Amino acid sequence: MSSIGVIGLGKMGLGLLQNLNRNNHKAIGFDNNKKTLEQVSNMNLEVVDSLKELVQKLQKPRVVISIITAGKPTSDVFNEVVDLLEPGDFFVDAANSFYKDSIAKYQVAKTKNINFIDAGVSGGPKGALNGACIMAGGDKVEVNYLKSMFTDICVENGFLHTGDVGSGHFAKMVHNGIEYGMMQAIAEGYNVLENSQFNYNYSEISKLWNNGSVIRSWLVELMIDVFSEDPKLDNFTDIMNMNGEGLWTLNEALQQGTPAPVIALSVMMRQASLIDNSFSGKVVSALRNKFGGHEVSKK
Amino acid sequence: MSSIGVIGLGKMGLGLLQNLNRNNHKAIGFDNNKKTLEQVSNMNLEVVDSLKELVQKLQKPRVVISIITAGKPTSDVFNEVVDLLEPGDFFVDAANSFYKDSIAKYQVAKTKNINFIDAGVSGGPKGALNGACIMAGGDKVEVNYLKSMFTDICVENGFLHTGDVGSGHFAKMVHNGIEYGMMQAIAEGYNVLENSQFNYNYSEISKLWNNGSVIRSWLVELMIDVFSEDPKLDNFTDIMNMNGEGLWTLNEALQQGTPAPVIALSVMMRQASLIDNSFSGKVVSALRNKFGGHEVSKK
Repeated sequence: MSSIGVIGLGKMGLGLLQNLNRNNHKAIGFDNNKKTLEQVSNMNLEVVDSLKELVQKLQKPRVVISIITAGKPTSDVFNEVVDLLEPGDFFVDAANSFYKDSIAKYQVAKTKNINFIDAGVSGGPKGALNGACIMAGGDKVEVNYLKSMFTDICVENGFLHTGDVGSGHFAKMVHNGIEYGMMQAIAEGYNVLENSQFNYNYSEISKLWNNGSVIRSWLVELMIDVFSEDPKLDNFTDIMNMNGEGLWTLNEALQQGTPAPVIALSVMMRQASLIDNSFSGKVVSALRNKFGGHEVSKK
Repeated sequence: MSSIGVIGLGKMGLGLLQNLNRNNHKAIGFDNNKKTLEQVSNMNLEVVDSLKELVQKLQKPRVVISIITAGKPTSDVFNEVVDLLEPGDFFVDAANSFYKDSIAKYQVAKTKNINFIDAGVSGGPKGALNGACIMAGGDKVEVNYLKSMFTDICVENGFLHTGDVGSGHFAKMVHNGIEYGMMQAIAEGYNVLENSQFNYNYSEISKLWNNGSVIRSWLVELMIDVFSEDPKLDNFTDIMNMNGEGLWTLNEALQQGTPAPVIALSVMMRQASLIDNSFSGKVVSALRNKFGGHEVSKK
């Protein structure tokens, strides 16, 4: 690929920009945050001040990869960029976008003969920088045109054309749903160890479990460092934020009629963690008090 | 180690026997199934016809590894063997035993100055054969005495002295609880893909997810072969058997007061899969019929 524009230079986008340049794809970055732009410019990476300048600098057919917050921010960028692009150009949405939004963007792009590809990117910032896992949906010929670029910035076998447009973001969404369930299962396990009569070294246990056991996985591998840096997780709270893809997976499962209790509970445990003094908890306390005269505990 | 006795030559025990021999530990096998004994004997592996003979053949201090069904079978073998062993000998329970049973056995063995070690073995039959993951509980000096033997038959970093007696089987139990949750999360994810509008190649998706993604894991790796051999899992039913360790993990969590909803639902989904026409399902059907006149569907 002669030159590629990367929109969004956060943790993920900056990694992709560096990854592309390291792999001899001339990548130019843009971010609407001036401070970010300056910082990236100081890293000897080429940046531009506007989407218009970005499009002007790219060789045809232009390839623009947008990797910013999903939803309105991505749609705003898409709407602006798609008006600047010309027939035959490519818009790759590498955000965690909802797959139906991606299908809608594909249809808008199609009317202008612009190629739209939905690319789900996994592996976190380290993956974006050193080798990602990308699942891409879109038309076969167009995805194939970008295949060597995608392959270059992914780990070996880390790129797949998953099928029709939307299938990339759908697969990424489901991947995140699975991730929620795996994380919650792992978390509950460590909690049972913690509340047991034994005195485990969790970093050692994590290292052990990651060598030869059935649950060996990148998530367990990450726990080796987590626990060696902070054996009792004193630097963390139990407020579990989320970006929405677990909830989308659950919504899809419910609409399909697919039972997904583990993904559901994983999402709900995260929701519960955000609530300080839950109304449902108060309802149960009130009922216990009313029918049994049980005392109400103070927090 | 001069010589080691292996009791139980099923999938796991046979693998351990071969693994020990390959690593220059002279291992002698015993199984109470004559046919199994004959088959193993035909593989040029040394076997004996009785526990008494096994103990007689071992050099002191004797090391006996029992890897048979947990519960009564393991207790029966333990009771018989512990009477044959002498002070200073070792009994290693490598079954998926309940940790409280192991603590009780340790105390019985202690009265006879016999060393008891509870060893949780993960990695399946392939691990037992080629390199296992073993978490061992017991007294430090005694576990250290066997450390080189354990290390030889495990993958690198796949052996750990987890702490006091019982801690090995407890850690293995929790490992299996996590495994249940991870498996259920993975399964729900594929089900959402299957019921979607897209036409995924699950073997390709599994390979992709196992390269660079956040959910890369041995379990996802296994799905590459599973789906490439049987794309729609036509050779499987949805009856999910279990060996009990997930249920134990849930029981422990409940006794501790540790919320473990994902492990709980994983266990309950397995239980539900064993039930053909559930009574609770009939209750709901009956109530819908009674209050709403809704028809009862026939299976």
